[in-house]
Amino acid sequence: MTRYVYAFAEGGRDMADVLGGKGANLAEMTRLGLPVPPGFTVTTRACREYLATGAEPEGLGAQVAHALAELEHRIGRELGGRDNPLLLSVRSGSKFSMPGMMETILDIGLGDESVLGLAKAADSERFAWDSYRRLLQMYGRTVLGIAPGLFDRHEPTDDPAQLVEDFKQVIRDATGEEFPQDPGEQLYRAIRAVFRSWNSERARLYRSREHIPDDLGTAVNIQVMVFGNLGPTATSRGSGTGVAFTRDPATGARGVYGDYLPDAQGEDVVAGIRNAVPLAELDRLDPTSYRQLVDHMGTLEHQYRDLCDIEFTVERGTLWMLQTRVGKRTAEAAFRIAEALVDERMIGDDEALARVGGAQLARLMFPRFEAHADTRPLAHGVPASPGAAVGAIVFDSAEAVRRAATGDKVILVRRETTPDDLPGMVAAEAVLTSRGGKTSHAAVVARGMGKVCVCGAEELTVDVGARTLTAPDQAVLAEGTVISVDGTAGTVHLGALPLADSPVGRFLDTGERDGVLTDAVARTLEHADSVRRLGVRANADTPEDAARARRYGADGIGLCRTEHMFLGERRSLVEAMILAEDETGRCAALDALLPLQRDDFTAILAAMDGLPVTIRLIDPPLHEFLPDRTELAVRVATHPTTHDRRLLAAVERMHESNPMLGLRGVRLGLVVPGLVEMQVRAIAEAVVERLRVGGDPQAEIMVPLVGAVEELRIVRETAQRVLAEVSDASGLTVDCPIGTMIELPRAALTAGRIAEAADFFSFGTNDLTQTAWGLSRDDAEASFFPAYLAQGIFAASPFETLDRDGVGRLVRIAVEEGRATKPGLKTGVCGEHGGDPDSIHFFHDTGLDYVSCSPFRVPAARLEAGRAALANRADGASAAT
Amino acid sequence: MTRYVYAFAEGGRDMADVLGGKGANLAEMTRLGLPVPPGFTVTTRACREYLATGAEPEGLGAQVAHALAELEHRIGRELGGRDNPLLLSVRSGSKFSMPGMMETILDIGLGDESVLGLAKAADSERFAWDSYRRLLQMYGRTVLGIAPGLFDRHEPTDDPAQLVEDFKQVIRDATGEEFPQDPGEQLYRAIRAVFRSWNSERARLYRSREHIPDDLGTAVNIQVMVFGNLGPTATSRGSGTGVAFTRDPATGARGVYGDYLPDAQGEDVVAGIRNAVPLAELDRLDPTSYRQLVDHMGTLEHQYRDLCDIEFTVERGTLWMLQTRVGKRTAEAAFRIAEALVDERMIGDDEALARVGGAQLARLMFPRFEAHADTRPLAHGVPASPGAAVGAIVFDSAEAVRRAATGDKVILVRRETTPDDLPGMVAAEAVLTSRGGKTSHAAVVARGMGKVCVCGAEELTVDVGARTLTAPDQAVLAEGTVISVDGTAGTVHLGALPLADSPVGRFLDTGERDGVLTDAVARTLEHADSVRRLGVRANADTPEDAARARRYGADGIGLCRTEHMFLGERRSLVEAMILAEDETGRCAALDALLPLQRDDFTAILAAMDGLPVTIRLIDPPLHEFLPDRTELAVRVATHPTTHDRRLLAAVERMHESNPMLGLRGVRLGLVVPGLVEMQVRAIAEAVVERLRVGGDPQAEIMVPLVGAVEELRIVRETAQRVLAEVSDASGLTVDCPIGTMIELPRAALTAGRIAEAADFFSFGTNDLTQTAWGLSRDDAEASFFPAYLAQGIFAASPFETLDRDGVGRLVRIAVEEGRATKPGLKTGVCGEHGGDPDSIHFFHDTGLDYVSCSPFRVPAARLEAGRAALANRADGASAAT
Repeated sequence: MTRYVYAFAEGGRDMADVLGGKGANLAEMTRLGLPVPPGFTVTTRACREYLATGAEPEGLGAQVAHALAELEHRIGRELGGRDNPLLLSVRSGSKFSMPGMMETILDIGLGDESVLGLAKAADSERFAWDSYRRLLQMYGRTVLGIAPGLFDRHEPTDDPAQLVEDFKQVIRDATGEEFPQDPGEQLYRAIRAVFRSWNSERARLYRSREHIPDDLGTAVNIQVMVFGNLGPTATSRGSGTGVAFTRDPATGARGVYGDYLPDAQGEDVVAGIRNAVPLAELDRLDPTSYRQLVDHMGTLEHQYRDLCDIEFTVERGTLWMLQTRVGKRTAEAAFRIAEALVDERMIGDDEALARVGGAQLARLMFPRFEAHADTRPLAHGVPASPGAAVGAIVFDSAEAVRRAATGDKVILVRRETTPDDLPGMVAAEAVLTSRGGKTSHAAVVARGMGKVCVCGAEELTVDVGARTLTAPDQAVLAEGTVISVDGTAGTVHLGALPLADSPVGRFLDTGERDGVLTDAVARTLEHADSVRRLGVRANADTPEDAARARRYGADGIGLCRTEHMFLGERRSLVEAMILAEDETGRCAALDALLPLQRDDFTAILAAMDGLPVTIRLIDPPLHEFLPDRTELAVRVATHPTTHDRRLLAAVERMHESNPMLGLRGVRLGLVVPGLVEMQVRAIAEAVVERLRVGGDPQAEIMVPLVGAVEELRIVRETAQRVLAEVSDASGLTVDCPIGTMIELPRAALTAGRIAEAADFFSFGTNDLTQTAWGLSRDDAEASFFPAYLAQGIFAASPFETLDRDGVGRLVRIAVEEGRATKPGLKTGVCGEHGGDPDSIHFFHDTGLDYVSCSPFRVPAARLEAGRAALANRADGASAAT
Repeated sequence: MTRYVYAFAEGGRDMADVLGGKGANLAEMTRLGLPVPPGFTVTTRACREYLATGAEPEGLGAQVAHALAELEHRIGRELGGRDNPLLLSVRSGSKFSMPGMMETILDIGLGDESVLGLAKAADSERFAWDSYRRLLQMYGRTVLGIAPGLFDRHEPTDDPAQLVEDFKQVIRDATGEEFPQDPGEQLYRAIRAVFRSWNSERARLYRSREHIPDDLGTAVNIQVMVFGNLGPTATSRGSGTGVAFTRDPATGARGVYGDYLPDAQGEDVVAGIRNAVPLAELDRLDPTSYRQLVDHMGTLEHQYRDLCDIEFTVERGTLWMLQTRVGKRTAEAAFRIAEALVDERMIGDDEALARVGGAQLARLMFPRFEAHADTRPLAHGVPASPGAAVGAIVFDSAEAVRRAATGDKVILVRRETTPDDLPGMVAAEAVLTSRGGKTSHAAVVARGMGKVCVCGAEELTVDVGARTLTAPDQAVLAEGTVISVDGTAGTVHLGALPLADSPVGRFLDTGERDGVLTDAVARTLEHADSVRRLGVRANADTPEDAARARRYGADGIGLCRTEHMFLGERRSLVEAMILAEDETGRCAALDALLPLQRDDFTAILAAMDGLPVTIRLIDPPLHEFLPDRTELAVRVATHPTTHDRRLLAAVERMHESNPMLGLRGVRLGLVVPGLVEMQVRAIAEAVVERLRVGGDPQAEIMVPLVGAVEELRIVRETAQRVLAEVSDASGLTVDCPIGTMIELPRAALTAGRIAEAADFFSFGTNDLTQTAWGLSRDDAEASFFPAYLAQGIFAASPFETLDRDGVGRLVRIAVEEGRATKPGLKTGVCGEHGGDPDSIHFFHDTGLDYVSCSPFRVPAARLEAGRAALANRADGASAAT
């Protein structure tokens, strides 16, 4: 027969699958001999079967009855009995913590008779009637589905017995039934209500957001009630309830932390109804209970080898442990506790690494606002690039540059940004946009520069013409108004909030360890580096970015985008190339670009001397370097000039309905004569310059947007010819590996053939996601992503976390088939996913050689690469046993 | 030892892999006892090895020497001997015919001494020196790579001996070498030159165009020279050369057809240097040779069971058969000959079907110009939709409709067309555009309507504002000018060319068989229908298209696009829906659309009564129904109105950088409340209307652009709810299968999960090609396809013929994994590829249930589906043996 019920004494903390987290931990504490009110747990399986069939699983009723009888026998009290009645709590508890998402019902067993027995036993009529009132309220809401407002309408009175009558009437009115006096009926209906709460809307939404599977179900813990509200802990016979942490969850410091609330039930603490006192106060009020508690905390921390979070109750001087779990903590505490436990020899370095995450490290790297919990934000947006910044708002790039030059701190505010805004973004402290998501231009570029960014703040109206920002409360902010932008929280605040510097950021920049935290981070990163198999490179287009990437521990550059070098003043040369009416004109423009590109490459190769630098040939459609079609057409219609007319003709000629799918990437190289030659020559000559001064340049040439091996073959032949020419001319050997991006589904599907002409693959998972899903991230994030996330179609944006089933499958196919053609083919990833913790584990598992991400994500990526290696090792070990 | 040389007597026509087509056929004729000048063939393998290594395969020289010795011994003459020298022809011949693409060298063996022997033996000095001159010219060009112009400069003189001296000097000047007098050296170098010609640029380009693999290599045929230029056939001892066909290759009629050229060599016929006489003339000039020839033609046709194309030479009254092959023929002849051979019991119905193709049938379906070979076209474009039309040019849809209403025949001329041009396209005889390729809007829509279309005629300048069309010769054509458009050839002509009607087109429309051709077509189609496994449905959006599809033999509608019903007058309702500021406004707009959609569906279901009709929910981005952003912005900037301002705001709000990848398909249904409900309700109510009048409606609901099963699940639940509501309300059972397009790589890659929620799959191979390759067909065809085709990256546009390696692999994955989840899952294809012969074979092989294409492609698709079944059967049979 299927077993649906376990007494606490029968379980343990490794049984969370069966008993849920809370049940497993109650069993563990019972096993350790800690004072846990006795009880039993109904398994998650019972819940799953109930939800699947709508009926109680066969045998569950009998097993609960049996466990209840044993409990009654053991403590010598009867559920809902006349004298000193046994009361029960019925609590949910799933495998993964879902705080507040499911239901709890307390004081089960009370009725019109037992309330009198309770009053006598507790020597408090008021307490007994208040408990009955609580039961009616919770039962009415949870089991009977009565709207909470119907109870809340009744003011708390001095006569709890009257309130009980009122609440009974509420139940009668709402359901046409009497509140059941049979304690067994109360219990069974409460269990079923907890089962059902697994599928409540808020629970489903929470799981979707937290990536918790929908098919786990919840366990139900049925436990003898103990009461913290039997009079205040003023003497050693007093009562109260509290929460305790074995270390400070905010900083990780050792010591006993927590709050104590005299004369209260647990839910009063959670609800924050009354003010608590610091836990240490208990030592003064009830030293025996306090010493017992501290003793139990030691036992638990030793057993769990981690920070434990404990709920307890003191009932007339007797300490009861109600719950424990490994406690949540801040990022800072996570690092400090992990390394402290290593020092205390509780855990090893591997375990310490497993207990922190890249996302936590990322949160520690940037300045933050000291405290703005009390500051109402002006508006909310997408937290697109972490950190905190204060500055005066400006509405265009030129103004940002002008003001920054005079030493002002500015915030660049735009509807959305384009490559034209780059100088302004560099000059600004932060970027704020009213449109676009986490992978909009503003977000991607800001993250790449480590600039604070909040984007998609749709409540704000940006009027660049009028140079105003209008807040949702209709306040109009003129240029120059000072605001504060929190890129970690995604909030915007009026005025200057006080800033706190980041010691971790300073450590990463300078190597300076100035305290326990930086020391813990440094040690964790060192260990990650020692165990990781995956290389971590950076995406960097400038010598400054390259230098930073190196400081942050990058193993090279995985993506150097040459088109960024086509912007700014050089734009006119690109324009000249596009507008050239003949071979001569185009050649002249290309010739003028050559030395500029060469100098860029020389500087980057110098900054990364000795490490690989993967340079991607130009990728975006050339018309991106021309003005916007609509703006230009309006200008020509209203203030025509010859140059604009000519420009408009070119824009019209080159207009594409879907530029993402148009003339870009390798296609440019195959259509625009001389372009590949110019870029390869610039790279080769930069290599020569570095060799001449004794450097160790490791340039790699990468061809974007290849769909068929033939495209790569043609470009490869051209590139090799140019490399040979430069070698001949210089007398030095210039030999760069030539590889390709795999960023189109067809490239992945024909990777076996493409590998014939490629020295390496680099997965462009941004474009691969766009094409595999058929969606443009800029358009989609603004239009239908919110609806998709709300409807649970996406658990996370596929541009943040790699979609393993679709895009990931393409990556696996390409790695396998590419290596079948060319064993040992080097493979990496250079999309945004290269810096995403979850995705990094996938890339490790898939056998890639490296990930590449923005310099600011390099430390977190190193950490995650280390963790992935450990996870893999653990999997291997368990597979071997 | 590898065998590289076969005497003619050792081969046969099944050895084309080894001996090439020409060699195999020479062997066959030899085997049949026909008078073939003796010789031998060097295998294609020898060529492949030579090209791979650059050196002559070991043993080849000895084998050639041995074969030559045997030949000399057999005919008792010596290569380049003093008396009556043996001369040889050296000719290429690959497995697949590549006419004129590779090299031939004649008269090998001549030199300063043997020329005198030849003169004596032939009794003609002039003939001997002229032969020597020919050898020098061919050898110089082919073996030595001398530019032809260097020989052509020398005027033919009356003294061929002098010309020989001149040509020797040309060789000396160009190479610094003497022409080799050693006949063996001539032979060996000629063989190697033929090998090399396999890789000449024109040969490679030809193969790329004709989809002939690059790794086959050519065989080399070495054969005793016979001469048709030893004096005219005026007596029975005269000479000449000719070509003969066993049936008329133009019409397929029985009888002897061909041309005869007295006193000439074969290459003179090919070069068309002199005027030939009809073959029948030979009967008068040399009845013996003629009777022999006719006799041999009978033998060959009986042996090959097909039209044979023969080259022969009469040397002083002796007939020699120089070459034969199965002859090329027109589309008309193909059908007539195939069915005639069935009647003559030479072949069976399967074989007859295998000998015709869908492309041939398509060419016969439309009117053509009677003869315009002599008319110089005004311009060339892409032959986008076949047929011929004459009319007056008009520059917009309204004018086309206006003039057509008065009975005028018009040609709609646009830069490119948009859905707004639809009424004009319907009204016009043909559509001509200056931009776009075979899958541009104009092309796709015109093919769907069976309208003539030439697009991408870039030599033409269309000025819609000035209402003029400017030709490359600067002629300016005003509106109303009559032109002729040939959609089969892709040409545009000034004035009215005479039109010839299509009997096959008339037969398909009416079922009327008016002659041998329509009878042959009818019989072939009947047989194809009896053997095909693949269903053939049509893409049709109107009752008229549905009716035509049914006449043309469609098994149902595979794609009914509902968005076409949102155009025209209804556009204002769509605009109202988009501009609606609240729920009420949007609902009102949807409510107004509902009865219109229902009436559309009712009419289509009536036209297709009893057959399935797959209705796709709305697919394109809604902003496609709004005006162009740039045009509107210019209008607002110059002549602002309130309505336009409001419209512009909506257009700006909904603007997408890449609409193809934006808010469209299923995403619309998940974001725009009420849209799916309205469309499903319209379908369900149409089904009810048809059921009420005793019809048999077979509607299927298709959800476009699904990438994840969750999307489909949500729409499916909505659709099922609406179906149930309509069922309840009507008291009739409305039960439509609900399936999905598979048109995104991710859909194919997760097809196993998507099949859980789909009753059928329909592959949208257009979008699947766009996303797998990451290219937008409209943009790409205009910008880089020409370069890609020229550089051989594409053999054909992947939008015309399915890319099997990439897109095809996705289709296979989806079919396999979808059926693993749901055995017997119905699968079809509704992209442009559904009507492409080559792709149809792939779909058959992949196990799809049906293809769907425009009504006009249905007959060809039926034919190809039959052929695919036969090919499969043949494969199965050979696999079984």
